[in-house]
Amino acid sequence: MIEITYTAIGIIHSPFTKLSEMPIQPTSNSSAPGHIEIYPEYAEGLRDLDGFSHIYLLYHLHKVSQAKLTVTPFLDTMPRGVFATRAPSRPNPIGLSLVKLLRVEDDRVYVDQIDILNGTPLLDLKPFIPAFEGAENIRTGWLENAQKDIQKTRSDQRFLKKS
Amino acid sequence: MIEITYTAIGIIHSPFTKLSEMPIQPTSNSSAPGHIEIYPEYAEGLRDLDGFSHIYLLYHLHKVSQAKLTVTPFLDTMPRGVFATRAPSRPNPIGLSLVKLLRVEDDRVYVDQIDILNGTPLLDLKPFIPAFEGAENIRTGWLENAQKDIQKTRSDQRFLKKS
Repeated sequence: MIEITYTAIGIIHSPFTKLSEMPIQPTSNSSAPGHIEIYPEYAEGLRDLDGFSHIYLLYHLHKVSQAKLTVTPFLDTMPRGVFATRAPSRPNPIGLSLVKLLRVEDDRVYVDQIDILNGTPLLDLKPFIPAFEGAENIRTGWLENAQKDIQKTRSDQRFLKKS
Repeated sequence: MIEITYTAIGIIHSPFTKLSEMPIQPTSNSSAPGHIEIYPEYAEGLRDLDGFSHIYLLYHLHKVSQAKLTVTPFLDTMPRGVFATRAPSRPNPIGLSLVKLLRVEDDRVYVDQIDILNGTPLLDLKPFIPAFEGAENIRTGWLENAQKDIQKTRSDQRFLKKS
């Protein structure tokens, strides 16, 4: 068993303070602006970031319940393999969101389209580079029939950690 | 300091056995087919994945040298903040690649366009859902001038861990 330890490089600040009624993804109607506070010791790594329009945020889904291998995602009523979904209750609960970069001010990164819980630890941020992320002839499996609800669906408490 | 521990869910198998002369990203001319061996205890999570054409792989860059906050990326001659690049020597060395899914066979996931070192531990895989990953009016900062070399540039040993 290979164990890997990371350290948060910052904290995500958003208007979303509980896991229910959140947007389920960045392009949702209810996603919102927010900012990321990068810890001062990492701020040097933000240089040149402000030339990019979109960035990936990788973060630790810290309020999510134990991993499940089969989940019923927000957009479906059928159980699905967790790796065929973006559900948060993953064996390694790493969240991935592509968000719009508004501006960088010292150790603050201001973004739009956040779909992330307030206080979430940030693991990494990467520039979005369409020439790297190329995809053609895209198919989206079980989601083909659920696409119409993507923008209006909100989360509920189904993946919340019992505390 | 928030420490977070993950466990590899599988291993990535690719034709690339050393960090030099590798493709620097999935859309490179030199990226190649490979497969991921998901550990049996996680295989149930792969159900329904085969309906998707593209998946994100999140993996631990296990051969990369210590974190640097300023790097000279493969596509440039100028030092840049590491978070404005996809360079592997990040504070949390998590790699992200969007690859083409060929097929799923039990606990094996066959993919194309791999730009990942053989033996790399896999942390997570997620379906690519264009409706989630929407981005318009894209700008790519310092990379605007380097785009022409993206497909032919290969890696060298600049980020290799000293062993």
